[in-house]
Amino acid sequence: MHEPADTIRLLVSCPDQKGLVAAITEFVASRGGNILDLDQHTDPDERMFFTRVVIDLADLTVSTDAFAEQWEHVASRFQMTWSTHVASRHRRVAVLVSKMDHCLRELLWRWEAGELPCRIPVVISNHADLEPIVTRRQVAFEHLPITPETKPEQEQQIESLLEQHGVDLVVLARYMQILSPGFVERYANRIINIHHSFLPAFAGARPYHQAYQAGVKIIGATCHYVTATLDAGPIIEQAIARVDHRDTVGDMIRKGKDLERSALLTGVRLHLDDRIIVHQNRTIVFD
Amino acid sequence: MHEPADTIRLLVSCPDQKGLVAAITEFVASRGGNILDLDQHTDPDERMFFTRVVIDLADLTVSTDAFAEQWEHVASRFQMTWSTHVASRHRRVAVLVSKMDHCLRELLWRWEAGELPCRIPVVISNHADLEPIVTRRQVAFEHLPITPETKPEQEQQIESLLEQHGVDLVVLARYMQILSPGFVERYANRIINIHHSFLPAFAGARPYHQAYQAGVKIIGATCHYVTATLDAGPIIEQAIARVDHRDTVGDMIRKGKDLERSALLTGVRLHLDDRIIVHQNRTIVFD
Amino acid sequence: MHEPADTIRLLVSCPDQKGLVAAITEFVASRGGNILDLDQHTDPDERMFFTRVVIDLADLTVSTDAFAEQWEHVASRFQMTWSTHVASRHRRVAVLVSKMDHCLRELLWRWEAGELPCRIPVVISNHADLEPIVTRRQVAFEHLPITPETKPEQEQQIESLLEQHGVDLVVLARYMQILSPGFVERYANRIINIHHSFLPAFAGARPYHQAYQAGVKIIGATCHYVTATLDAGPIIEQAIARVDHRDTVGDMIRKGKDLERSALLTGVRLHLDDRIIVHQNRTIVFD
Amino acid sequence: MHEPADTIRLLVSCPDQKGLVAAITEFVASRGGNILDLDQHTDPDERMFFTRVVIDLADLTVSTDAFAEQWEHVASRFQMTWSTHVASRHRRVAVLVSKMDHCLRELLWRWEAGELPCRIPVVISNHADLEPIVTRRQVAFEHLPITPETKPEQEQQIESLLEQHGVDLVVLARYMQILSPGFVERYANRIINIHHSFLPAFAGARPYHQAYQAGVKIIGATCHYVTATLDAGPIIEQAIARVDHRDTVGDMIRKGKDLERSALLTGVRLHLDDRIIVHQNRTIVFD
Repeated sequence: MHEPADTIRLLVSCPDQKGLVAAITEFVASRGGNILDLDQHTDPDERMFFTRVVIDLADLTVSTDAFAEQWEHVASRFQMTWSTHVASRHRRVAVLVSKMDHCLRELLWRWEAGELPCRIPVVISNHADLEPIVTRRQVAFEHLPITPETKPEQEQQIESLLEQHGVDLVVLARYMQILSPGFVERYANRIINIHHSFLPAFAGARPYHQAYQAGVKIIGATCHYVTATLDAGPIIEQAIARVDHRDTVGDMIRKGKDLERSALLTGVRLHLDDRIIVHQNRTIVFD
Repeated sequence: MHEPADTIRLLVSCPDQKGLVAAITEFVASRGGNILDLDQHTDPDERMFFTRVVIDLADLTVSTDAFAEQWEHVASRFQMTWSTHVASRHRRVAVLVSKMDHCLRELLWRWEAGELPCRIPVVISNHADLEPIVTRRQVAFEHLPITPETKPEQEQQIESLLEQHGVDLVVLARYMQILSPGFVERYANRIINIHHSFLPAFAGARPYHQAYQAGVKIIGATCHYVTATLDAGPIIEQAIARVDHRDTVGDMIRKGKDLERSALLTGVRLHLDDRIIVHQNRTIVFD
Repeated sequence: MHEPADTIRLLVSCPDQKGLVAAITEFVASRGGNILDLDQHTDPDERMFFTRVVIDLADLTVSTDAFAEQWEHVASRFQMTWSTHVASRHRRVAVLVSKMDHCLRELLWRWEAGELPCRIPVVISNHADLEPIVTRRQVAFEHLPITPETKPEQEQQIESLLEQHGVDLVVLARYMQILSPGFVERYANRIINIHHSFLPAFAGARPYHQAYQAGVKIIGATCHYVTATLDAGPIIEQAIARVDHRDTVGDMIRKGKDLERSALLTGVRLHLDDRIIVHQNRTIVFD
Repeated sequence: MHEPADTIRLLVSCPDQKGLVAAITEFVASRGGNILDLDQHTDPDERMFFTRVVIDLADLTVSTDAFAEQWEHVASRFQMTWSTHVASRHRRVAVLVSKMDHCLRELLWRWEAGELPCRIPVVISNHADLEPIVTRRQVAFEHLPITPETKPEQEQQIESLLEQHGVDLVVLARYMQILSPGFVERYANRIINIHHSFLPAFAGARPYHQAYQAGVKIIGATCHYVTATLDAGPIIEQAIARVDHRDTVGDMIRKGKDLERSALLTGVRLHLDDRIIVHQNRTIVFD
């Protein structure tokens, strides 16, 4: 099977207008680039244009930095919001956890199996419980306990660690703490959370207990970017499973763990593959 | 294929206690009855027992009326809430609609195809739009318009029609009117509604618009019994479908219609097959 | 909601090479066209390129005929196999049936509801059973009985009817007859069949009986283009449902009917929306 | 939540006849037993009766051995095939693997998490690759290489190990070797295999390559008991996932691994929970 050595991925949002795709593809072709994948979406109501372009780096006649620099001319002409990312430059991911291990295990396992294209330099937790499964993989584990008094301070420590490790993406793998608005803003669209319900149903605490009380026949998990509004950031992925009267709250929690693992893994993968554009609290996911 | 001529279905709820299944099955066996199907559920938290028993009528040595009468002795001993229903005595179902046809069509189509074991003597609507698809099937169509002033009076007319047609079950097939608490109470657990969202998310009006705004990746429909609290009665069935950024509100409405048809059909079928027990705003569904 | 008045859809397959997307989009842009949707796929193993482009006709500076004619120059340069279709020019669909009504009903119902963008000038059957549900919709019903002796002759009559009605697409909605290789070739990739199994499992006759015997836990239905090899043409869509030990062959048939309706409807829709490219007995489906 | 301390599970198959459930439940009640769960199925075509009964051991007035012994009288009267199993007596499971780790990891992980009620005394492989992930969990790893000449001898070694470890259930977690008919017979309905396709489609080698060539839109995995006929034993569970033209064989293999893990885990769980009865190459699964 032919697999290209490396690619550059371009994500673009802008007001819809004629000639957009032609301008983009002409730009790439005139620099020797071969487009391997182009996905595009036009929102007819908002008259917005979104695209994801994957370009083979092999024959590109300019450096990837020059590519981005020259692209700026096209981008400003069409009022584009955009980003580029070279596939081989793996992002640095920090995972934040509390005591529950299932989401962390899923991420580490997939990562070890080569199914998650990133680096994981550090795992941070307010509890010490998960240290062994982290350190045995040669990943740094940072234990930063929280008390009501030390919460702001602890968050500063987290942010220092993220900077120190050059972290590009923060994954909350059942990290049961709320982050401050300032922190969230600095990592806008770069913090991914897993909520253990089919949002917006059962936001807040103990969602499986809420679901049990409501007598729903389907439970879910929701992977989303974190915003200042709790449990209301742009949804990336949702997974569901059927339940019935035989399922206790405990059964729902057990089934839900599998949903959480699956939805979080999918969400993180989509982010690492540069498949997500956020526009006005909704996601365009090119999958 | 061997198909039994007729059956009696027994539904029972009571506090859990020893010897329940033995008492029930001994009662049936001593009257010549053969149990074709027995489904049972014990709620370990509430210590409640629920069962559905299907008995072949062929060799029963007592009449079905005598069966029910004699059963009362067992039932009172164990503080049972119970009901029996002879399968061949098809229930009489009234369908209430407004202007939208998809749920009504689904019910009528399945009914014509012999897939819905009931009679449908009457369809009632506050609009005249759906009259042709009803009357061409030799079903009575009653047009009862509503104004804010005539609402209570119109509901009384509905109730008269239900009595007149000997209706056992009322199906709200996208009937966009709220019924009064008195009406709902008189038909407790005998009014089935379809709500066009994954309840409890997006209760109330225009749920697909709400879902679109929330950017969910999965939409749903919920079939439930009607209680005095709007959109909060015991859930019978929920159906879901994936959506993505390419789905407009219109697409969601179109996909949702299929979910509504499917969930409502399933819910009505389960009721007609005596597969549902309601306990404290939750359903036990023996499927 | 903004809905474009009309569009032209372009489907292209060709050997992968640099500058393809640029050449296509430049061609469109230089004729005033606005690309509303562009979906593209590159097969890295076969080094083949496939695309579907949807162009707003509103500002196109050339006629749609001139568009296609001028396009031929681009196409020959890149060795393209291609087709264009103007969305508003609804295809003419003939439905072939035997005795079973569920697939035909689904198609007619969706068509009446405006959910199937086509014309249905004629329904052809080797049995007379379904005539009433066809003619009451003002669609011609042609009854062409078959005996072993008259089979070739009957097929000729079908083909005459297709020509006479200017048919673009033939849908076999549980038409239980095998078509001759010559017929199939003349309508290559324009005959859609629904097979009542999860192909390639249970090809041939009585698939639900086969599935029951095999004790499978999931049954399916397969919508595919017809080729000279029975039940082996390019698969467009497959639908599945879970079954268990309580499902008799009769239950599987009943559940299967819903799958057949759903898979066939999806397949026909995808074809009418010009979303399918066939390449070497496999389909690329831009959905 | 109230959780019973321990239970006895009774599985019964016999020709259908009147009074069966009454006889069973009366037997239990007269020994002080409380039935916590009773699931029952009657096959109307074959006139066979199947049941699974779960009895609380707490108030049972006889020992579990005496219970089984006395039961034999009821069983012989009704020509029953039956088994009993005390839930707390965890079965001893041997896992056989080759080089692929995903199924083994899934089993070990769930087992460590307390989600798989069994003991795993030994993992046996014809390759040494997976030794580290086994031995670090304090589970014995036996490396028994195979050459064409030593195959019968190696199988004898396996059987010796199974006896030595008192193994009740053999799980083939992608063990790529065929077992001899004699071995299979001695462990009838006690060897569970995972096949990486939706059987009976794509039996044999390289099923994902076969699926890719066939252009299917859904792939699957099948968990089944092993019989002398390759890939044709009674199916316990099947799992599926959608694929499309963008999925390479490699993608299918990756997606398929998740299906294999899920279907195998479910199958093993159902067996350990005594939820499966095999009758004429089909399974009754009380889930």
